[in-house]
Amino acid sequence: MSAEIICVGTELLLGDILNRNAQFLAIELAKLGIPHYYQTVVGDNPQRLHQVIETAIKRAKILIFTGGLGPTPDDLTCETIANFFGAPLVERTEIIEDISKKYARRGRKMTPSNRKQALIPEGAKILPNSMGTAPGIIWEPREGISILTFPGVPSEMHGMWGTTAIPYLKSQGWGTEIIYSRTLRFWGIAESALAEKVASYLNLSNPTVAPYSSKGEVKLRVSAKAKSEVEAEQLIQPVEKQLQEIAGLSYYGSDDDSLASVVGELLRHAKQTISVAESCTGGGLGQMLTEISGSSDYFWGGIIAYDNYVKEKVLGIDTQDLIEYGAVSATVAEQMAIGVKYCLGTTWGISITGVAGPTGGSETKPVGLVYIGLAGPNKQIESFEYQFGNTRGRSLIRHLSACNALNNLRQKLLSIRA
Amino acid sequence: MSAEIICVGTELLLGDILNRNAQFLAIELAKLGIPHYYQTVVGDNPQRLHQVIETAIKRAKILIFTGGLGPTPDDLTCETIANFFGAPLVERTEIIEDISKKYARRGRKMTPSNRKQALIPEGAKILPNSMGTAPGIIWEPREGISILTFPGVPSEMHGMWGTTAIPYLKSQGWGTEIIYSRTLRFWGIAESALAEKVASYLNLSNPTVAPYSSKGEVKLRVSAKAKSEVEAEQLIQPVEKQLQEIAGLSYYGSDDDSLASVVGELLRHAKQTISVAESCTGGGLGQMLTEISGSSDYFWGGIIAYDNYVKEKVLGIDTQDLIEYGAVSATVAEQMAIGVKYCLGTTWGISITGVAGPTGGSETKPVGLVYIGLAGPNKQIESFEYQFGNTRGRSLIRHLSACNALNNLRQKLLSIRA
Repeated sequence: MSAEIICVGTELLLGDILNRNAQFLAIELAKLGIPHYYQTVVGDNPQRLHQVIETAIKRAKILIFTGGLGPTPDDLTCETIANFFGAPLVERTEIIEDISKKYARRGRKMTPSNRKQALIPEGAKILPNSMGTAPGIIWEPREGISILTFPGVPSEMHGMWGTTAIPYLKSQGWGTEIIYSRTLRFWGIAESALAEKVASYLNLSNPTVAPYSSKGEVKLRVSAKAKSEVEAEQLIQPVEKQLQEIAGLSYYGSDDDSLASVVGELLRHAKQTISVAESCTGGGLGQMLTEISGSSDYFWGGIIAYDNYVKEKVLGIDTQDLIEYGAVSATVAEQMAIGVKYCLGTTWGISITGVAGPTGGSETKPVGLVYIGLAGPNKQIESFEYQFGNTRGRSLIRHLSACNALNNLRQKLLSIRA
Repeated sequence: MSAEIICVGTELLLGDILNRNAQFLAIELAKLGIPHYYQTVVGDNPQRLHQVIETAIKRAKILIFTGGLGPTPDDLTCETIANFFGAPLVERTEIIEDISKKYARRGRKMTPSNRKQALIPEGAKILPNSMGTAPGIIWEPREGISILTFPGVPSEMHGMWGTTAIPYLKSQGWGTEIIYSRTLRFWGIAESALAEKVASYLNLSNPTVAPYSSKGEVKLRVSAKAKSEVEAEQLIQPVEKQLQEIAGLSYYGSDDDSLASVVGELLRHAKQTISVAESCTGGGLGQMLTEISGSSDYFWGGIIAYDNYVKEKVLGIDTQDLIEYGAVSATVAEQMAIGVKYCLGTTWGISITGVAGPTGGSETKPVGLVYIGLAGPNKQIESFEYQFGNTRGRSLIRHLSACNALNNLRQKLLSIRA
């Protein structure tokens, strides 16, 4: 007993719009514990939509349609569904009245084309649309098959889903079992390496554990099926704890945490402050840190030292060292971190200098070579070298540089606290 | 003869990610003139994927898969396709070598699980992935059926599509009639206002003109259907020119241009330099400017003055003014711009100070209030006030602040040049 999402609209096939409706419905179905295994997109074409319905009813019992409910001739979803199940369309006066009222409120008159929107399959219930003119339907054309239709406009669909569809689906017995998930976040470990470490967990059935990765970050999603959030938490927590222990320091947070928010909490807790000295990231690390509301508690500011003149004049980097080691070097990274820490008077100074590319690389300093400097209390000073390679692109190299800077500080703060 | 897009990934069914890949492929297929009538999403489940392939080959000849090519056990796309068409998987040493090299470059060792990514169906060609470890395949398992697979990571998929898939599809005779588009970009005008100004163009048939907007930017997409790019250009150019003239200064560039790249070109042309002083954006303006490769020609650096201590100590803001007018004021914005210009010795200094929210607002300084300061040659100094409101969220307020700062500088540079 599962659902299928069917999105109707030629604009989706042309790529004119992004299919946010499918994502919305997917999340909502998961919350209600309704499994769904397929999503289909089809154009405003009755023959093809007919075929899609034929395929869908063989594999799903709840068919959820979005799109194609408008007043124009290419809006054919409702008609095609009625046709498929051999039901006549009937004009519902309450819909005509509702549309007329909505037009009157905007000082307009209903157009003849809107009458089409009042035609719904015999036996179907109206799924009212409080915002727009297109109502949906809730219909059980055959024993065990439920049809729900929504307009393609996301805001209208969202309203209708909450007001009418959820109560309907709950009345059918759904929502007693929910799927509840936690995302565990890791930095500094490859997806394949983490997957190997936690291999035995990837076969669990409740909760399930699935790895994902994007832009250098690896995630494990732990999803439990349960009667309530409390029960789901009880299933998730022991597994979560074990996964954290296996991953060790590479685990950094869960759900809405980010490296910046986690570092921020550690700094706030330690009553310490930070400043940044950025070359190749040009401000990206500062931006990441300040994306967190309330970061002014620990983030004081920074120096964007893109040009060597700024490195020398504002950060006080030794000219001789710039010549001898180059701006992209461990020595300069360390001096940048020390420079900004003292210039701004913070507990920590963190620096990034590297070759973000695509140009500017050399044999000894290739694109993707990045140094991170970290200056802390008691004259602690460290640097870290990264080779991100020249294939990932400027934007990702910069992103990875800023994330690794935060991750180094995070591990340092944890090691001090421990 | 049409294509079907098949996106594989349980994360899509759970609503964890938005299906941007389907939109990308839809646009690309349209450009090549390849019709496509269906998109299907299915989870990482071999039985269901098998059924999806069965349905798809009845109605399409080109099957394009994304997702499920990773190294973990739930990545089963390639295996399932091979299985469907009854072809054995063969280990390709060139893939193993490529993956090993990529790991080595990052100072890591390939894990045994990566070997799985080297298994591709007998007879298939490798679709190389220059960025990640997962290669795709191009395969004609049966007369008249083409299979293309891509990883789910958008950046990798985009690269592979351009480098290998497009040439392959063109070699199959596609792309003789193309859809060629230009995106015109505007800043500082509302979508509805621009749409009214260019209303008569929105009904054209070849080229078509369609408005879009996101994050404060408005775009007009001008699309022509033609036999060649040259022919399409001839259709687009006169319309493009007229649209630019109608929009005036709010038009800033096209296609891959960004406000940062356009400002960069103006500075480079004028042989002038810039530095930034950022409070509420925390480095975001610097990051935007340095996202452009070669920005070191004109961007020298900046001061992230998040805390007032940095505003006073490094930028030399008058303490009395900070008390009297507050950090979020036209006076402080102007002093910040002057401060960074002189501190870093650049032609221009540009500053941002504001209340990004969600907390920190007051009756006189509400969330969304932002000041931008601009200091230039000959002691020119100006400031601009923005009220972005408190409903748009911290991230968007910061983005709009940085974009407006660039746009102010752009208009200034243009007015000087004129």
